[in-house]
Amino acid sequence: MAFDLDLIVRNGIVVTASDQVACDIGIKNGKVVLLAQGIPAQEGCQDIDAEGGYVTPGGVDSHVHLAQSAAAKSFGARSADDWTSGTRSALAGGTTTVIAFAVQNRGASVAQAVADYHELSNAHALCDYGFHLIVTDPTHEQMHVELPKLVAEGITSIKIYMTYAALKLNDSQILDVLAASRKYGVTTMVHCENADVIEWMTRSLESRGMTEPWHHGTSRPPIVEAEATNRALALAELMDTPMLVVHVSAPDAVRTIRRAQTRLLPVYAETCPHYALLDGTQMRRDGFEGAKCVCSPPLRDDPLDKERVWEGLANGTFTVVSSDHAPTNYHDERGKQVSAPRLCKPHPRGTFRTIPNGLPGVETRTPLLWSEGVLKGRISPQRFVELNSTNAAKLYGLYPQKGTIQPGSDADLIIWRPADQRKPITIVNEKLHHAVDYTPFEGFEVQDWPRYTILRGQIVYDGLSNAVTTEPGYGQFLKRGKSSLP
Amino acid sequence: MAFDLDLIVRNGIVVTASDQVACDIGIKNGKVVLLAQGIPAQEGCQDIDAEGGYVTPGGVDSHVHLAQSAAAKSFGARSADDWTSGTRSALAGGTTTVIAFAVQNRGASVAQAVADYHELSNAHALCDYGFHLIVTDPTHEQMHVELPKLVAEGITSIKIYMTYAALKLNDSQILDVLAASRKYGVTTMVHCENADVIEWMTRSLESRGMTEPWHHGTSRPPIVEAEATNRALALAELMDTPMLVVHVSAPDAVRTIRRAQTRLLPVYAETCPHYALLDGTQMRRDGFEGAKCVCSPPLRDDPLDKERVWEGLANGTFTVVSSDHAPTNYHDERGKQVSAPRLCKPHPRGTFRTIPNGLPGVETRTPLLWSEGVLKGRISPQRFVELNSTNAAKLYGLYPQKGTIQPGSDADLIIWRPADQRKPITIVNEKLHHAVDYTPFEGFEVQDWPRYTILRGQIVYDGLSNAVTTEPGYGQFLKRGKSSLP
Amino acid sequence: MAFDLDLIVRNGIVVTASDQVACDIGIKNGKVVLLAQGIPAQEGCQDIDAEGGYVTPGGVDSHVHLAQSAAAKSFGARSADDWTSGTRSALAGGTTTVIAFAVQNRGASVAQAVADYHELSNAHALCDYGFHLIVTDPTHEQMHVELPKLVAEGITSIKIYMTYAALKLNDSQILDVLAASRKYGVTTMVHCENADVIEWMTRSLESRGMTEPWHHGTSRPPIVEAEATNRALALAELMDTPMLVVHVSAPDAVRTIRRAQTRLLPVYAETCPHYALLDGTQMRRDGFEGAKCVCSPPLRDDPLDKERVWEGLANGTFTVVSSDHAPTNYHDERGKQVSAPRLCKPHPRGTFRTIPNGLPGVETRTPLLWSEGVLKGRISPQRFVELNSTNAAKLYGLYPQKGTIQPGSDADLIIWRPADQRKPITIVNEKLHHAVDYTPFEGFEVQDWPRYTILRGQIVYDGLSNAVTTEPGYGQFLKRGKSSLP
Amino acid sequence: MAFDLDLIVRNGIVVTASDQVACDIGIKNGKVVLLAQGIPAQEGCQDIDAEGGYVTPGGVDSHVHLAQSAAAKSFGARSADDWTSGTRSALAGGTTTVIAFAVQNRGASVAQAVADYHELSNAHALCDYGFHLIVTDPTHEQMHVELPKLVAEGITSIKIYMTYAALKLNDSQILDVLAASRKYGVTTMVHCENADVIEWMTRSLESRGMTEPWHHGTSRPPIVEAEATNRALALAELMDTPMLVVHVSAPDAVRTIRRAQTRLLPVYAETCPHYALLDGTQMRRDGFEGAKCVCSPPLRDDPLDKERVWEGLANGTFTVVSSDHAPTNYHDERGKQVSAPRLCKPHPRGTFRTIPNGLPGVETRTPLLWSEGVLKGRISPQRFVELNSTNAAKLYGLYPQKGTIQPGSDADLIIWRPADQRKPITIVNEKLHHAVDYTPFEGFEVQDWPRYTILRGQIVYDGLSNAVTTEPGYGQFLKRGKSSLP
Repeated sequence: MAFDLDLIVRNGIVVTASDQVACDIGIKNGKVVLLAQGIPAQEGCQDIDAEGGYVTPGGVDSHVHLAQSAAAKSFGARSADDWTSGTRSALAGGTTTVIAFAVQNRGASVAQAVADYHELSNAHALCDYGFHLIVTDPTHEQMHVELPKLVAEGITSIKIYMTYAALKLNDSQILDVLAASRKYGVTTMVHCENADVIEWMTRSLESRGMTEPWHHGTSRPPIVEAEATNRALALAELMDTPMLVVHVSAPDAVRTIRRAQTRLLPVYAETCPHYALLDGTQMRRDGFEGAKCVCSPPLRDDPLDKERVWEGLANGTFTVVSSDHAPTNYHDERGKQVSAPRLCKPHPRGTFRTIPNGLPGVETRTPLLWSEGVLKGRISPQRFVELNSTNAAKLYGLYPQKGTIQPGSDADLIIWRPADQRKPITIVNEKLHHAVDYTPFEGFEVQDWPRYTILRGQIVYDGLSNAVTTEPGYGQFLKRGKSSLP
Repeated sequence: MAFDLDLIVRNGIVVTASDQVACDIGIKNGKVVLLAQGIPAQEGCQDIDAEGGYVTPGGVDSHVHLAQSAAAKSFGARSADDWTSGTRSALAGGTTTVIAFAVQNRGASVAQAVADYHELSNAHALCDYGFHLIVTDPTHEQMHVELPKLVAEGITSIKIYMTYAALKLNDSQILDVLAASRKYGVTTMVHCENADVIEWMTRSLESRGMTEPWHHGTSRPPIVEAEATNRALALAELMDTPMLVVHVSAPDAVRTIRRAQTRLLPVYAETCPHYALLDGTQMRRDGFEGAKCVCSPPLRDDPLDKERVWEGLANGTFTVVSSDHAPTNYHDERGKQVSAPRLCKPHPRGTFRTIPNGLPGVETRTPLLWSEGVLKGRISPQRFVELNSTNAAKLYGLYPQKGTIQPGSDADLIIWRPADQRKPITIVNEKLHHAVDYTPFEGFEVQDWPRYTILRGQIVYDGLSNAVTTEPGYGQFLKRGKSSLP
Repeated sequence: MAFDLDLIVRNGIVVTASDQVACDIGIKNGKVVLLAQGIPAQEGCQDIDAEGGYVTPGGVDSHVHLAQSAAAKSFGARSADDWTSGTRSALAGGTTTVIAFAVQNRGASVAQAVADYHELSNAHALCDYGFHLIVTDPTHEQMHVELPKLVAEGITSIKIYMTYAALKLNDSQILDVLAASRKYGVTTMVHCENADVIEWMTRSLESRGMTEPWHHGTSRPPIVEAEATNRALALAELMDTPMLVVHVSAPDAVRTIRRAQTRLLPVYAETCPHYALLDGTQMRRDGFEGAKCVCSPPLRDDPLDKERVWEGLANGTFTVVSSDHAPTNYHDERGKQVSAPRLCKPHPRGTFRTIPNGLPGVETRTPLLWSEGVLKGRISPQRFVELNSTNAAKLYGLYPQKGTIQPGSDADLIIWRPADQRKPITIVNEKLHHAVDYTPFEGFEVQDWPRYTILRGQIVYDGLSNAVTTEPGYGQFLKRGKSSLP
Repeated sequence: MAFDLDLIVRNGIVVTASDQVACDIGIKNGKVVLLAQGIPAQEGCQDIDAEGGYVTPGGVDSHVHLAQSAAAKSFGARSADDWTSGTRSALAGGTTTVIAFAVQNRGASVAQAVADYHELSNAHALCDYGFHLIVTDPTHEQMHVELPKLVAEGITSIKIYMTYAALKLNDSQILDVLAASRKYGVTTMVHCENADVIEWMTRSLESRGMTEPWHHGTSRPPIVEAEATNRALALAELMDTPMLVVHVSAPDAVRTIRRAQTRLLPVYAETCPHYALLDGTQMRRDGFEGAKCVCSPPLRDDPLDKERVWEGLANGTFTVVSSDHAPTNYHDERGKQVSAPRLCKPHPRGTFRTIPNGLPGVETRTPLLWSEGVLKGRISPQRFVELNSTNAAKLYGLYPQKGTIQPGSDADLIIWRPADQRKPITIVNEKLHHAVDYTPFEGFEVQDWPRYTILRGQIVYDGLSNAVTTEPGYGQFLKRGKSSLP
């Protein structure tokens, strides 16, 4: 009996969403071929010695914005990351799969949105990737003629917005989307914030001259998110169709989601490292530093809110952790201030309204969750795998190709340092691989960082040299199926 | 490269608590050696073709009463099952590991209880087994001198009672137990019902001549369980030590547990098939038939309560499903009524107070959960594995030897029929392998039954012939470690 | 020492929202002058002997639609009741004060709405009355120039709608209204149902030909009300300004309100007799009978929902009980079918969408609450007074002139039969005094009916003869102040 | 027409639990005879001009310990207040009625307990008074032969304890009491703390030498109260009989009570000024100062817990505010340390276990609730009346004789200073009228103090001179009826 292998990862503690076992992983042609203890050595087969360190599935970041001009446009800013820099950054942080957003413009075709996005990503990606479809105009034609075609092409999830003038749907349009989602087996992601309230609060703040970056937080208090979450879940309950609430930050929203899950509604929830680790004081930093930490929902002022996020991460309420990577530069290539921040304070005519929303984070997501979650004892390694890889793969129809370590799965792995070799690493932007000129986690210390990232059997990142060792085009588009989460 | 194997299980869909993958399982010396797709054939190695059917870990029934004279004594009845008949029955239902109860008598030593129980089980068991320790007298000597020795011998869990005169502890004694459990890394299981209320209600019913079997249910309404559950959880919160609430039936108790879990208290919950599938009408059946369905907590009168149990099974509140197998005969070997039921109606001097509490179920547990849970779409196969095997193995320190299918684990498997070969099977007591003269599920139809049960690489049950194919003494005592559940 | 009196009500049990005392009431010039036991007889002073029956404050029905063409127009129907018939009906049911709605048309002035409504009511009313203002177009001019003037004229409450195309405000407009309400001390009443969902459901039902009257209920399930209630309360919390949720019917809405009250948000709730006593089976009656019971929110299908309404009435969640009297005829004066119902089934082209929403009930409200609430033991007489009179008077700025029996208050009284003289009375429409051709309570039996209604010291209704004994013009417009509810 | 009056209280704002009206009060023979605006002057009738100040019913303090040797005995301390000093203190604080506790000793008769207590109070009380019965031994004889006699003599409430070795009942005994209470229409008051846990914690603390006064708080954390409250409510629900939970302090207990009230269980709750205004820092004061603030449940460490108490006071969860006046001296008459505190730190052999539990407060209760509640805007004057007088009178069967201002009620009044005459007053023990050598509120500033206390038409306290103007024996024993609270 013999298995012909390319690569053996030895002596690791292989972790899945439920198990943790000391065994070797045999890999051939980019796939996991076997799991066994003590696989005999083979000639011509590379060996990696994990030395007793954990081996987890490659990260699946199911919420990243790359080269996304449309959304960025609404803030007059260009995406700092294109498909090349963004996916390089992903690999350097242990993420082997990203799902980014093809945006339908109002009045335009969803098929065109996807075609355009293929154009941008094709041959440029370093990691594997899929597309969610952002729907801004759910006409019958788009939802019932075009959408089924896209589903057949592997675009099996839709994102919709309850806020942002250029993107938002009203409740009736949301029902149109959910009805189509139900019919075609699509999972719907929803950005839950009440647009009317935000606009009203913003105008009210502006009329009082309260336009500093931190007033962004004032303009969208937690109740704005909690209300919209409750509304979205009511719509999902009416339609009885799966819904994931993206980037949840407010304790009341977490509670509402938990209650719905208790009643077995098909409701999923996502949060991001910044909601678990940062708070509103970031927006009060000087100069443009505050503006750089503006995202929506905003970082919350009450530090206890972070504890509620960790509670939801540990108790099962959250389904996935994503980065919501949203890359914007505050200086151009020559080091000059770029146009967008010109519009925010400290510029005299600036206002928080025009600050591009979002933080970069595709590279830091996995190390932060590993370090602050597992190594600090807040979650188990298995729960880490579930949040970082498996659930996203299942929910978005990539499982079992992605998100686990099983015979037949893609050999996407993160190899972590063994316990006795871990050393604290301080996050500094200059060591990150994205094209963004800052990270909100500058100076934050993590207890470990991936030693190797392996994508389809290839070492694509070497943590010793901090080098990404593959090229644009190595990443493949993933035709996704339907959710297999219960 | 070669693996020397005894047995290959081919073409199954191997299910763990998080994954589901089509692959073969290579087994040697009773252990899983490798998982791979298309393991090459080997000479001298047996092949089992699972034909696309599910392969799940052997069942771990963490709550069975076998040959337990002490507890039974309180009802004047003998255990119908000894270690041989009970573990044979387990295997025939897909369960390869049971954990039964060594009972400390008041004033006696816990070590003696364990020694006595080893005496009874040694060389008699057909499946693997461990012991929980029932503590009825938590003196300092027993808890701090004897207990640590037992922990070192693999008895790492304690069960305590809040009811039954012969067994119950008061709150102060429970704190004594929890403090010791915390110190020695023991998991505490608690039977939560308020003893005082039950006794008061029972006397009140008796004084009115309300002594039929169904008055057992009247004497311990759901609030009796919910109150005690709330109290037990308060004590666990004070001590911050893991607690499993056994055989939960009341919706309010489920709610209380869910709230505690939301707050990340280390609280676990168990339920049993009878609470999910039977209700109080069983106790109203004629003659001794009602008496046979008396258990505590009682089967609940409100049929909606069963839905709440299923809700908890699906939403993650329940950690394990056990049988709470409690075998009592209602006729002796010559077909005559045995002594215990003489004391219950329709015997003229009978009263529900003297009916032995508990139902047999070690053989039906797994098929019922599979059929009513997975095949009826209420839970996923992965959740089934979690409830039926993995969580019990983790909580009670048997993992990863038991409870999963991974390289290095014991090759304990259930092979289920492929979808196209399933056929409904009606449960009748005469086909069961226990030594009990009834099953509460008589006439209940399941959609499937294990095709093979495999224990440490041996086929120990063949579903075609309904034959258990191993002998007393094959079962091994399991020295258990500490809980690895978060 | 002497008091000069017109009228003495003797031997009654005088009930206020907190007290219940056997004493006499001395009245002069329409005012209560003194409360005392055994007021000496006076010459020239009328005596009424209450014979040990309860004496409660005259009813304050704070939600009635009279002669309201604007709203009715949206359904193509005329108000069956004008100010004369509607207020006559009120008196016959023990209600001495009504508050009806002056409707701002979109683009029009709120002042004009009030002026027009004065025109209609002036000299026509038999009972005292005030106006709420329905705002459909909350421009800055209307809210900040016109509104303060109306407040000064005694219009101190605004009603807004979250549904009905002709009336609804979006969330931003609601915030505009609430900000003004906060500034000028106005109480805001909100009709909470999600307009988008209703319209979506209605179109969906119509597209399937599901257009029977009872599909009205299908088109606005309880979650439609619960969602909107949650949203409205979120807006009120943001603005920290008093809000009353009108005609609450859904248990989840009740729960949301209760939670808000627990947190001391200034949230009030109203329900109506039909939500406590009728259910969705009414809409399934034959011919036009089903259409006659169409109201919004609809009568609920789950009969347990009525129990939740009674629970809220008894536990303090509800602040007031109103009739939401909305009078539409189904036949014209010559007995012919009128235009509106022509549009609903059984008319071949009819659909539930066009059925005028609302039920008549100004006359039956008080007797139903008394009989089903007090006489059936669900609420105390004091709680009845609170719900029927006092809270409405306080919330809408009529207290202490109205809503209680105290020295200085208007002598508005209901005198009930003493216990030994009560006899069941069956409600039949022909004995009611409104101008509507049906009552949804036809055939409903009440245990008592007001024996006398007294308004400002005058007997205005005699229950023996079932006669209203005053004339149009006796009713006075009430200039209301600000809420005195905490 | 004429009323013959002794006393007219003029120009006050007369407040009841629901109303507030400017009128005069006419009084004759200790009873309110009439309420009217502008009562004509009479010869021989005293006038008091309230000058626009509030007039509220005399306070009813339904939880005071006076001359209660039995309970005190368990701490080896004598009651500092006898019936004379305690009731003098009550009057000086606006309280005109107290209900104190006749304690059944184990094995003794309840009748004897009441007879003995009459002995102590008879001819010594300055204010009116009733007795609750503390039951420590609920034998059938005592509950079903003796109790009904006491009920007939006006002892219509029972207090039981779930803690304190000398007093506590187990759950079975509580059911015995509740069953009797249900049968004889008695209201049961329960001290809810888990005795077993407290004893366990206390021994644990003592074994570590943690015996300072503040460890009293450590020994009975909030969960000890919350658990017992949940248990007591479960027992009340089983028996469906009214229960008041005394001196509630823990937020979780408040929540449990609120939930029960929402479901219409007949559950009432009491709190005390010290739980609303003081916290655990009091127990950390130096010397005996900490010991003086030891009570059970203890003052809570989390200052937010006080906010939850105020929330419950405002939202209706609490039924009554009592003082739980428990008077112990820390020095004897010659200024020497008395025996009890000798046993607590700083005495070298002292431990918190032996500190007499309880605080004096009968005189400060009403002024504190008025000042911190009404004058600080947390509750309305009506809610103050409800909490301070009316609800206690209703619940304990004194209504309408006590607890309100109505024709026929006893003329028990507090006359407060008009708004423009209020001036801050600092509480100092030397100005109080009790016989206790400290007040826990020393130095606390209130915004007002009663100007006059009137009991049955007599001025019994003059706030100008701070003098109690009546003599021992003026107070009358009150034969109480059954609860009239819904």
